Amino acid sequence: MSHLLPVAAGFDLSAIDTSSTPGFTGEKKDAERELASNGAELGGLQERLFAESRVGGTRSVLLVLQAMDTAGKGGIVRHVIGDTDPQGIQLHAFKAPTDEEKAHDFLWRIRNELPEAGKIGVFDRSHYEDVLIHRVHGFSTPEVIEERYGIINEFERELSESGTTVIKVMLHISSNEQKVRLQERLDRPDKHWKYNPGDVDERLQWDAYQEAYQIALTRTSTVDAPWHVIPADRKWYARWAVQQLLLDALRRLDPQWPPVDYDVEIEKVRLAAT
Amino acid sequence: MSHLLPVAAGFDLSAIDTSSTPGFTGEKKDAERELASNGAELGGLQERLFAESRVGGTRSVLLVLQAMDTAGKGGIVRHVIGDTDPQGIQLHAFKAPTDEEKAHDFLWRIRNELPEAGKIGVFDRSHYEDVLIHRVHGFSTPEVIEERYGIINEFERELSESGTTVIKVMLHISSNEQKVRLQERLDRPDKHWKYNPGDVDERLQWDAYQEAYQIALTRTSTVDAPWHVIPADRKWYARWAVQQLLLDALRRLDPQWPPVDYDVEIEKVRLAAT
Repeated sequence: MSHLLPVAAGFDLSAIDTSSTPGFTGEKKDAERELASNGAELGGLQERLFAESRVGGTRSVLLVLQAMDTAGKGGIVRHVIGDTDPQGIQLHAFKAPTDEEKAHDFLWRIRNELPEAGKIGVFDRSHYEDVLIHRVHGFSTPEVIEERYGIINEFERELSESGTTVIKVMLHISSNEQKVRLQERLDRPDKHWKYNPGDVDERLQWDAYQEAYQIALTRTSTVDAPWHVIPADRKWYARWAVQQLLLDALRRLDPQWPPVDYDVEIEKVRLAAT
Repeated sequence: MSHLLPVAAGFDLSAIDTSSTPGFTGEKKDAERELASNGAELGGLQERLFAESRVGGTRSVLLVLQAMDTAGKGGIVRHVIGDTDPQGIQLHAFKAPTDEEKAHDFLWRIRNELPEAGKIGVFDRSHYEDVLIHRVHGFSTPEVIEERYGIINEFERELSESGTTVIKVMLHISSNEQKVRLQERLDRPDKHWKYNPGDVDERLQWDAYQEAYQIALTRTSTVDAPWHVIPADRKWYARWAVQQLLLDALRRLDPQWPPVDYDVEIEKVRLAAT
């Protein structure tokens, strides 16, 4: 999956061209066609993973989505996740923590939303906010944040060992692209509700966020749970790329229709007698 | 919405033709085309309902799905709900209650899964199991079940008053159609996992279930939360009909893009300065 930019030694976030389309040579219409035509395979894999869990299988998938505002997390959920069976999806959007959540350690609310066996969990934001926004705004001390990288790695190692395939994605846009997208939200009345003045305040911290991402990605991209940085200035590419990551993960899991634990011929006779 | 069989005075479940297509005059391909073409309107209404909640709106929708096995709840979720934005959906499948759930009153687990403001909640089975399977198998006494009809009506009235539009659907198939569908699960290895021998045991209680539905539907179809019985021998019709019920409900809610609580022109200037 090298074409989908796994974060490894020597990784430099600032060196990535946010408008590039690594691993894909076609154009928008080609990506959209592939996205649609891959839906059947993705759905089939998803159903087999779910079926496996009905007879005791414990495997699951967790897609973690992180990004600067407007980078397209919502579009990924709508167009990639939206193309799967809702019965096999557990989606959760993490907002600013509630008082109850703050009273617990930062992974408490995360653990509560982990996917059940057989499901594909999707996190729209995640525990990474606790090393990203916390670093940029100083919500936690450097020492606490430093400690969290290790806690996160250990947590994700446990997830992996208990059968959850963790796919971490940063949708990466340029500062200019964000400006264009925020502008669009201000220009279109049907997008006004998606904008709030705090978006500009956060935007002024752009460089600090990029630095926080650079450090977090480097410190927490592990064999068990690697990060992938997806150039996202072109929405159609980002959607295609995330679908590829999901497909790759599910193909490797290679879930199978479970063996029956009843006698099919006997059941046919029983049913016929009703 | 009389064409979608609301349950009212004089209702007789046994008189409904499960292969009929009330309110729809076309054929399968027409229904499928309409289902697909209605997706955009449904998605737009869903997004406006969600947007409304971002500025304090409290309205939501709850679709309750009940049915005999194989009647097509899963297909409704996949093809009707699956055509909406996952971010605006809260789906929950109620299984046999856990020990923790049994330790509480029967509505406890239901209350825990109610849709948030702005969301469309979908219940795959529901609190109605506590007056259906409980009646058929005698899990509760007749007195307790009798009391539950009133508790349910009161509960749903509260839901309605607090801004949740409740749409209750029974997908109604014939006993013969169920036999065909169970047979298919036994004939196709990729469907074997969906079958279990208990399905035939339940099937032997067909008449008792029909009676339990007749009583429950009659006792709990209220102005606040009416029941709709959807003939479901033809899957394409049932999907079209449930989508119509959702569309009707959302059109009546008529959610609007919320007014902005910031000065758009000032924000344009602020953004331009970044």
